[in-house]
Amino acid sequence: MGVRHVALFRFVEGTSDEHVRRIDEALAQLPEEILELRSYVFGRDLGVSGGAWDYGVVADVTDVDAFVAYRDHPSHRRVVDDLIGPVVAERASMQLATP
Amino acid sequence: MGVRHVALFRFVEGTSDEHVRRIDEALAQLPEEILELRSYVFGRDLGVSGGAWDYGVVADVTDVDAFVAYRDHPSHRRVVDDLIGPVVAERASMQLATP
Repeated sequence: MGVRHVALFRFVEGTSDEHVRRIDEALAQLPEEILELRSYVFGRDLGVSGGAWDYGVVADVTDVDAFVAYRDHPSHRRVVDDLIGPVVAERASMQLATP
Repeated sequence: MGVRHVALFRFVEGTSDEHVRRIDEALAQLPEEILELRSYVFGRDLGVSGGAWDYGVVADVTDVDAFVAYRDHPSHRRVVDDLIGPVVAERASMQLATP
């Protein structure tokens, strides 16, 4: 059994495209630094369905320990604390078992 | 580019394990009926992190048209309307581009 971490975000009003681009770039670095990440998909909503949240991150890791290592990794914390945290209006997250 | 649909749910107080099990079973049928689904991961939160939402669905499809076909498929609508809808306190969803 693997673990899939999912986090969805609504950004505060006025969050700039530039700021979201910086989030994209910072997250893109993480798989090189956090080797527990088997798959890492993230980005803006595609604008297909009404009421969608703004941004999502889906991280696949091998087990719960690997998820905790990712969650608490300094590089991940930096992105969360310095880039994502300041523009988050709402956050929804959970961890699923993957087959 | 593929499309990843993510939906997270908080259930209303008192939602029974039995009801959640029926949701599991109903969702497990969908990949056989909705051929657009390339990957379909769903289930309860693992209880690893505080503040996690209760349930999540992650559906991978080839493109936006395939997502719309999934979203509007009668079998999917039935599960949403008859099983998930009645016990949802909160819903967060969006669609991501996958590499």
